[in-house]
Order: sequence, then C-alpha cells, then structure tokens
Amino acid sequence: MNAAVDLPLDSTELSFEAAGDALVRRSLLPSGVRVLTERVPGSRSATIGFWVAVGSRDEHPAGAGHPATYGSTHFLEHLLFKGTKQRSALDIAVSFDAVGGEHNALTAKEYTCYYAKVQDKDLPMAVEVLADMFTSSLLDPVEFENERGVILEELSMAGDDPADVANERFFEAVLGDHPLGRPIGGSPDTIRAATREAVWEHYRATYRPQDLVVTAAGAVDHDVLVDGLERALRAAGWQLDLSASPEARRSTADAPLAGTRALTIVERPLEQVNLLLGVPGLVATDERRPVQSVLNAIFGSGMSSRLFQEIRERRGLAYSVYSFAPGYSDAGLFGMYAGCAPAKAGTVAALMRAELERVAEHGVTPIELERAVGQLGGASALALEDSDTRMSRLGRAELTLGEFQDLDEALRRISLVTVDDVQTLAADLVARPFSLSAVGAIDEAAFHGTVDPSTVPTAVETTATTTTGAA
Amino acid sequence: MNAAVDLPLDSTELSFEAAGDALVRRSLLPSGVRVLTERVPGSRSATIGFWVAVGSRDEHPAGAGHPATYGSTHFLEHLLFKGTKQRSALDIAVSFDAVGGEHNALTAKEYTCYYAKVQDKDLPMAVEVLADMFTSSLLDPVEFENERGVILEELSMAGDDPADVANERFFEAVLGDHPLGRPIGGSPDTIRAATREAVWEHYRATYRPQDLVVTAAGAVDHDVLVDGLERALRAAGWQLDLSASPEARRSTADAPLAGTRALTIVERPLEQVNLLLGVPGLVATDERRPVQSVLNAIFGSGMSSRLFQEIRERRGLAYSVYSFAPGYSDAGLFGMYAGCAPAKAGTVAALMRAELERVAEHGVTPIELERAVGQLGGASALALEDSDTRMSRLGRAELTLGEFQDLDEALRRISLVTVDDVQTLAADLVARPFSLSAVGAIDEAAFHGTVDPSTVPTAVETTATTTTGAA
Repeated sequence: MNAAVDLPLDSTELSFEAAGDALVRRSLLPSGVRVLTERVPGSRSATIGFWVAVGSRDEHPAGAGHPATYGSTHFLEHLLFKGTKQRSALDIAVSFDAVGGEHNALTAKEYTCYYAKVQDKDLPMAVEVLADMFTSSLLDPVEFENERGVILEELSMAGDDPADVANERFFEAVLGDHPLGRPIGGSPDTIRAATREAVWEHYRATYRPQDLVVTAAGAVDHDVLVDGLERALRAAGWQLDLSASPEARRSTADAPLAGTRALTIVERPLEQVNLLLGVPGLVATDERRPVQSVLNAIFGSGMSSRLFQEIRERRGLAYSVYSFAPGYSDAGLFGMYAGCAPAKAGTVAALMRAELERVAEHGVTPIELERAVGQLGGASALALEDSDTRMSRLGRAELTLGEFQDLDEALRRISLVTVDDVQTLAADLVARPFSLSAVGAIDEAAFHGTVDPSTVPTAVETTATTTTGAA
Repeated sequence: MNAAVDLPLDSTELSFEAAGDALVRRSLLPSGVRVLTERVPGSRSATIGFWVAVGSRDEHPAGAGHPATYGSTHFLEHLLFKGTKQRSALDIAVSFDAVGGEHNALTAKEYTCYYAKVQDKDLPMAVEVLADMFTSSLLDPVEFENERGVILEELSMAGDDPADVANERFFEAVLGDHPLGRPIGGSPDTIRAATREAVWEHYRATYRPQDLVVTAAGAVDHDVLVDGLERALRAAGWQLDLSASPEARRSTADAPLAGTRALTIVERPLEQVNLLLGVPGLVATDERRPVQSVLNAIFGSGMSSRLFQEIRERRGLAYSVYSFAPGYSDAGLFGMYAGCAPAKAGTVAALMRAELERVAEHGVTPIELERAVGQLGGASALALEDSDTRMSRLGRAELTLGEFQDLDEALRRISLVTVDDVQTLAADLVARPFSLSAVGAIDEAAFHGTVDPSTVPTAVETTATTTTGAA
C-alpha cells in the first residue's frame, strides 16, 4: 500500500501499513496527547520519543521588564533530566544506565524531543520515566544554577568548533532576522541572564497535554504503550486544560526575509577555512521537496556527487565537501560546505557557486537522475532498519508535516522527478541571493568574486582571545 | 551455547552459534584469505569489511636514504578508492552511491578496514568492488598528488579540532616512544615527503592474500560470499605467494614504556580547555579486561557514572566528561576526558584523579557493580542489532584477539567480576604514572597538583598562528 496519510489534530484513531510489514497506528487520547507507533516485526528493541513543537524559533526577544528568552528551550531540555518529586537526577540516570539504554534529548529550531532506546522488556520503564520527566520536573533552583554552568560549557565547546560557528553564522546570513536564523542554544549572555521563573513559565506554557506527541518504533505494542502512558500521566495528575488555546500552527508559506547578509567572516588563527555558501531553499511542505532531494543527491551527497568529484577528486582542494537542504515551516536553506586551506578558500567558493550555476544552465543527465533515485531509495531502506529513524520520522511527520508518508510513497514521488524539474529548481535557486560564511585565517576580499557585498551588508568578527601568560 | 572459540590461523572450516539465532562461520581459503560471516535471520542488509592487520604502528622511522613512512598506511587507504584497471575512482563511487550504500574505510593503529553496508541484493556487487579495490589499485601518480592535498586538508581539520589534538598528545604522553603513541595520519611533513614508490611498496608488502580477512554480518550466506570472493580474487590474478612469510604476529605482553611525559600543554586562544588525564592500561588480551569494562562503566561511562555525577551534575564544571580504556596488542590506556573553562581546569584534573583514587581506596558498591553488569549487557544487545557492529566484532576478534566470544560468553565473564576485582584493578592503575594533556588558554602550573612534572618531562607548544591582515 502506498500511504500518504493526513494527520489531522482531531482524529482519534488511525492505522495504516508502512514500509515492509510494519504497521503505523495513531491515537488521540482524551487528555489531548497524540501517540504514534510503528511496530516492526522481529525487532527486539524500541525507540521512544516525547516531542513538543517548541524550538528556539519560538523564543522571545527582550521586552518590557524581561530579558530575551533565547536559549531557554534548550535550558529547559537540560533541566528535565534534573529531577521530579518521584525521582532525583541520579535516579533518572540510573534507570537507563542500569539496562544499558540510550537516553538523551534534542532541542531543534522547531521542536524538542526527549528519547530513549531500550530492549523491548525495558519499554514500560522508559515510558514511565520519560512521562515523569516531561510532566513533573521540579526545576530545582540549586540544580538550575549548576546546569547554567554546564550549558555555558556546552556553548563554549560549540564556540571552539569552527564548523559549528560557520554553520550558525550561515543560518544568520541567509535567514537574517527570521526567528529560524537564531542559534538554538542562545548566547552566553542570554544564558547568564536566564531566570528560573522565566524557564518555569516557558515550561508551563508549552509542555501541556495538547502539546505532547509520543512516538515509538520497533518492538512496540500500541495498546500496551497507550495504557502505560495514560497511567503515568494520570499519576502525574495531568489533565487537559480546556481553557488553554490549542497548539499554535505556524505558517507553511515562505516568510519574507529581511536582514540577510552576503558575507560573514569570523577571523581565527586556524589551519583551515570552514566555508558555507548558499541561498534560501524550500519550506518543509513545498511540493518540490522531492525535486530538491534529487538535486541535492546529484549535486552534493555522496562520493559520486558533482561537488565531491570537482572539488575533492579532481582538484584535491578539500577533505570534506557536500551540500544540504534543511526545510522548516516557513523557510529553508540550500547550502554547500567545504573545509579548505585559506589560500584556496576563494577558489573553492567560486567553484561551488559555478557548479550550481552549471546545473541551472545545462541541467543533469538521465544517468545522474537514475543514480539519485537509486541512492535515495537504498539509503532510506538502510536507515529504516533503525528504530531511531522510524521513531523520529513519525515525530517529524506529526509535528512539522501534518502528513505521514511511508517509504513506498516517498519513493514514488521521487521517481516522478524529471531532469527538467531538477534544472528548473536549480535555476530558481541560483537566482536567489547568495550568502557566505567563513571561519578561519581569511580576508573578506577572497570572496568578492562569489558573493556581492555591495548589495547587502558584510560582517567581520575577530574572535576575542583569552591567551594566558603561560611560559 | 556459550562460545569462546579460538581462531587458529590454519583451521580451514569452523562454525558455531553466536548471539540469538545467528550463526558464525569461518573459512580459510586455499589462497590464504580468511573469511568470517555472521548470518542474522530476518536481516535485509549486510555489512562487509576487508581487513588487514596493518596500522600506523607498523610504519617506519626515517632510515638510510628514505624518509619516515609515518602516515603511509592512511595514505594508502585513501588511494584504494582512486581506481583500478577495471574501475575509475568515479566508477567505484557510483557503484555504492547508485544503490544508496554506505562505503568507507578506517585506518587504525593496528589495522585497516574497507567496508560497505548495502541491501542484501547488493552484497555481490560490494564483494566484487571491494575485492577489485583491495587487490588491484593502480596508485596512479596523478591521483597520488591530488590525494596528498586531500590528506593534508584532513590533517588540518584534525589540527583545528582541540579534542583531536588533546587526544593525540595524550597517546604520545602516556605511551611515549612506543609505536602506538604516534598519530595515525602521520604529520604534514611526512605526508609532504611521501613518495608513490614507498606507498606502493607498503601496498605490495602488506596487502597479500594471507593478510586479508573478510568479515560480513547480516543478510549473508557464507558459501555464496566465499564463491563470489574467490571468483573476484581469481579475476584479479591473486594467488598465494608461498615464498612470502606468514603474517607477523605482534607480542601480546605489556611492552616496557619509555619517553612518556607527565604533562603536555598546547596553548591556544580557545574558550574551553580540552583535558585528558590517565595512565597505561591493560593490553587487549589481558584476562582482566572484563574487570576494566566494569570499572570503566562505574567510573566514567553514562550519566550515572561517578565522573559525570561529580564533575557535571554536582559541580556544573563540564558538559562532556567520561573515561575510556582502549586496548592494543602490547599496550593500553585508561583515560579520562573533560572540556571545561580554563579557570577550572586545574580543579577538574585534580577531581578526576581524586575520583579514581577514591575507587582504589574505598572500592565500589555491590549496587554499582550490579548496575554496571546490566549496563554492559543491555548496551551490547542494542549494539548487536546493527550488522556494522557484528561485522566489526568479527574482524577485531580475528585480527587482534585470536578468539571470538559470543555475547553470552562475554557477559558470563563480566558477571564473574567482583567488587574486590574492581578495587584491586583501580589500585593497580592509580599506582602507574599519570600523564596529562591539555589544549587551550592554560598554563602548566594549573596541573602541578595533579601530575608531577619534576619526575618526567613536560612539553609546552604554542600553536603557530597564521592570521591574515584582514580588516
């Protein structure tokens, strides 16, 4: 069966076949919680996630009497591991460590997810602990201060990673003032200014029953999971607050962009330049997403891609070079990455842009198209062997797409893509304004042939050094 | 069945049950090639690896008339992707990309492995292409020069990563002049000096039939794989060179260490200090390895571990903190890692050492022991769901242990560990000389309370900056 199933907020029961023998079921509980499971026959383990459609984009700038809440979604994610009335932070850690489970959380721009991967016998425990964390976190003031230090170290670690820094500056350059342009973790300043009260308010406002989506895949029985979840939520005294507004849906049309930049340079004394070049891309629900997947496969994904062949294989200019195309509710990006020697950075940037323009002008070959379709199909089949991938696909379908596609349906859409579609999309993309970010021992002049800083502003930062006087 | 099976070089056929319903088979082909497979019922994909027991430790220092060969094993690994008489570099890349397969290679200190993960239907292709790459690489002189540039970029990328740099300096500090102390990739100088002739000689001398071990796991039929492999090797004209000496086995006893260092500092203007502290550990075949696994789980693996609880949870000093214990033929390490603020680095190092000494002095609790046994068992069960893990376990068993343990047998050995064993091992480890490496804006004086630089030498490097005059 080819399944592309709408996931309406108010349907209470839904089930459909998915890839292979898997069965997807969806329930809307009376409390407003949504549950999606994908049972994979033969599986001995399961991955489960607790999701909310709240990410860094939903945070607020400074206003009357309160500082910016930037980074508070990620701060809250950390705090959920720090204890409830029932369980200390150590109890939570022990629950998963004692069974060798994986257990972590992820804050993204448009959602937050708490997840665990465990053997089948340990799934009831995972449901209980995650439900307790999600509903009943204390946000203890002492733990809050300790965790502030941990998060500042996490930001420092990212700040020392040139690829991370280039990536954050790239999002800011392409998306400008759009909330998706901001870094997920906030900044050291907003984390130092964060108050327990503000994070508590954020928690109460956004972690309500109608916000929670639970997804699980692998060795999972839908009815057993729903029973265990309802018991855990009742134990937490968690009820639907009927006065609360339903989840705010974001727009899914392209938002107009303002404040974008042609060029951002972060000068640092490094061996390599980390370089990102790209344009605004397609939103997550754009019907041309399958075309963009094919374009990205041909252009910059894998060792046979055009970027890899031209920049690494033929010219030996980079070790790591690829393209990527993340999509969000109301914005997206089409980007290219390379790490290369400072003296070659201008050449590499010019080559990357020229390669994309070559696709726009001359298109791709039927052989490349066929190969891309095979690549996307094979890679998806391999990825779906992991219950992690299936769990995550269910969550993103529910939260950001409002539609669940099984593998056959996704591949059917990809198989309809033509060489003309790919060329047309590439032509559309190259007509958009290019932005470039670079971190390294580099000068903005190197990139004037690739992006035009006369039309939009340029930023140059020099990293503050904190050198000690060590002998 | 509990299986701990010797893997003698000269037995031609062997088969035994492994975890779950899996069946492990081993064949010694007439050519001298060894083949190990683990068939996992229900699996739809397979991972296959081509291994040789040659790593960076087997390279040579500069001698009469020739430069050091440091980095040539890794250089050779790159070149095997660059074409044979039958296939260009692009052909090789296309073979795997067109089916969405994963395809890569890994150079380690004691082995090199070329691997692919594909859907079951694509396994015959993977065997054919990997066999062609392995036996018949051209090492084309033009490709050689291009790839030199790519490898220099790879080294630059690692050189810009403070955790990578701290890790390499830590191995050098603990293992000193031992060949395992050297970095895997060589240095920019040895890569610039590498000649095609030297790498070609390395290739011919170490990639012989009797050196090759092929392992595969997942949806694999042993006999079909052996047939396909023999056909591919015959096509390559590959025969056993009877005049060649058999594979040189390394010693498996502790090698005496010389040239170790107490303290290595790499001064860099970074936000964090990347810090590693540790001592020489157990060799891979030491019978106390299960004890060390338990100690490592309790001490520094997972959120409930002592290091995590003390340094992150109670004090908020680090985001990432853990311990690790790699073992090799004739040396090993027991190490601890943390990334923290420069002002706290001395405190963190002192705490890490004090925590290990606390285990040596006061031991661990029966509850911690029980939790560690559960953790190691559960984590192994989850890891064995991936055919990658099974393929890799077969290869390392054959190449470095000479013994294959199934999961039940490995867990049986772990279940025999007592709290006394753990304390005795910790006491043994803390009596060994501690070494510390740190990368960041830090001064060696910060660590004088933790390691004693009066007994062994200290090194301080300041990273050469290449700052441009950019405005």
